[in-house]
Amino acid sequence: MEKINNIPTKAQIQNAHCAIAPFIHRTPILSSSRINEYCGAEIYFKCENFQKIGAFKMRGATYATLTLTDEEKENGIATHSSGNHAQAVALSAFNHDIPAYVVMPRTAPLIKKNATLGYGAKIIECAPTIEDRQKTLDKIVTQTNATFIHPFNDFNVITGQSTAALEIFETHKNLDVIMAPIGGGGLMSGTCLTTHYYASDTELIGVEPMEVNDAFLSIQAGKIISNKSTNSIADGLLTNLGDKTFEILRSYINDILLVEEHEILHAMKWIYESLKIVIEPSCAVPLAAVFKNKERFKSKQIGIILTGGNVDLKKLPF
Amino acid sequence: MEKINNIPTKAQIQNAHCAIAPFIHRTPILSSSRINEYCGAEIYFKCENFQKIGAFKMRGATYATLTLTDEEKENGIATHSSGNHAQAVALSAFNHDIPAYVVMPRTAPLIKKNATLGYGAKIIECAPTIEDRQKTLDKIVTQTNATFIHPFNDFNVITGQSTAALEIFETHKNLDVIMAPIGGGGLMSGTCLTTHYYASDTELIGVEPMEVNDAFLSIQAGKIISNKSTNSIADGLLTNLGDKTFEILRSYINDILLVEEHEILHAMKWIYESLKIVIEPSCAVPLAAVFKNKERFKSKQIGIILTGGNVDLKKLPF
Repeated sequence: MEKINNIPTKAQIQNAHCAIAPFIHRTPILSSSRINEYCGAEIYFKCENFQKIGAFKMRGATYATLTLTDEEKENGIATHSSGNHAQAVALSAFNHDIPAYVVMPRTAPLIKKNATLGYGAKIIECAPTIEDRQKTLDKIVTQTNATFIHPFNDFNVITGQSTAALEIFETHKNLDVIMAPIGGGGLMSGTCLTTHYYASDTELIGVEPMEVNDAFLSIQAGKIISNKSTNSIADGLLTNLGDKTFEILRSYINDILLVEEHEILHAMKWIYESLKIVIEPSCAVPLAAVFKNKERFKSKQIGIILTGGNVDLKKLPF
Repeated sequence: MEKINNIPTKAQIQNAHCAIAPFIHRTPILSSSRINEYCGAEIYFKCENFQKIGAFKMRGATYATLTLTDEEKENGIATHSSGNHAQAVALSAFNHDIPAYVVMPRTAPLIKKNATLGYGAKIIECAPTIEDRQKTLDKIVTQTNATFIHPFNDFNVITGQSTAALEIFETHKNLDVIMAPIGGGGLMSGTCLTTHYYASDTELIGVEPMEVNDAFLSIQAGKIISNKSTNSIADGLLTNLGDKTFEILRSYINDILLVEEHEILHAMKWIYESLKIVIEPSCAVPLAAVFKNKERFKSKQIGIILTGGNVDLKKLPF
């Protein structure tokens, strides 16, 4: 497959979707009449919690792996992550029978280490600091010549993530709004591009927890601003934007909404109780914004991407 | 629709399925490669947790309502239940624009009362004893001439419940085994009949918690035996069999397996973590039996009916 070195085109997104199809699930789109009645809108939830490895990250990691040359494949792929991207890189490497190296802080939960080990990746432990994480990754890349797959700030990864929205528009062409949460911005960037190409009348809204509103501040300031706090239950959204995701978001996104922690919890409970599905707290952030702004979204048809379902059941906030 | 006064026939089940179709969801059938690898079998989960009101009970209540004459409809329907059947009767009455009367112990959780009230049913409170429950129901039936819809010991209700298995066989014809949990036996009786008519080579296995093994003991003794304890987390399975469900089970079921409480919890965790869906503890009982008897089920294709997803999130046992 073609390596993508600039903002992905419509044709590249379409090709990527065909290329990754054998390695991903086409996840279902669910709705709940109870939720719709409660908020007076019509919401379609794209359930990436049912995706392979339990999160949309499988799309980006798979596409990035498919773009490797034979020689690069032999040397394998590497990343630093303690979360869903680690598992996505590990399974993607397993699917292509190549080595995977994952740098994880030694404080990462055993459950996450085991999930990554379970797909046959090699884990390299580091100190729980950003500096040591990067240093350890650089070392492993130098040693092995593995290709680093960034969790979000990579056009191949963004192209992969863009396919979730593509599957929504294939069956739901006339959405008024499409929403996703923003962490590093990989999913939201991909969603922006797909929406721009396939449904340019659809409003593009990203949502962040008030406590980690770096994307909101960055768009406002016209430059990347870092989070001052990581104090949110939405643990998939604590990352700052990268230059590539920032560039795409500032070009295409219509709005970024912010929600409080208690609003995230409230929406999360609604999803568990009404959709009967297991989601990560990050998933609940867009629905929280709909509940918070009922008048704005009244009678709208809204697509929401639920990002993943890898949650520690012992820590459910109910 | 035809009132069914004897063991339902194949044609009656087929007709019932067509009749209830506008009022129920055709629920998805999910599987998990992780679960399949873990137990060495191939399991297809029929997800009645995604059914209207969150449980298979909607099927039986809907069919029973459809069999009413116009005069009976005017007088409405009644039942005693604090669980899923109450909500099913309430929504079914709402769908047909007729009154519903639900007798509930005054100790029933507010959340269950509200769910039933939410569908417009009238709740009549009683003392939390079986005697007072029946007495209160009799009184309300005498006063209103409403038709009592029994939660399971009723051929119309059993016919409705039989349609869950029918939907499995429509897409998965060659199952080696079909499994469901046994409470009052409505779902299992219906499953027995459908399997007998549509897939007579498929083994029929019911599962109970060791602590509430009344169906196991009843089949063994050749007469209905009551539970000595209600000490199980599987709160949908605490009921004894009725004469109609007992009659069908003893004719058709191939085996009843028993599982311990910790085995139910273990299987429940697997379903949450691997299928990413919210289920009631009762749902996990058949999977627990597969995990417990791996050799017996090795390489088998197994259908399991997941009964419902109405769980109090505050009381999840993780």
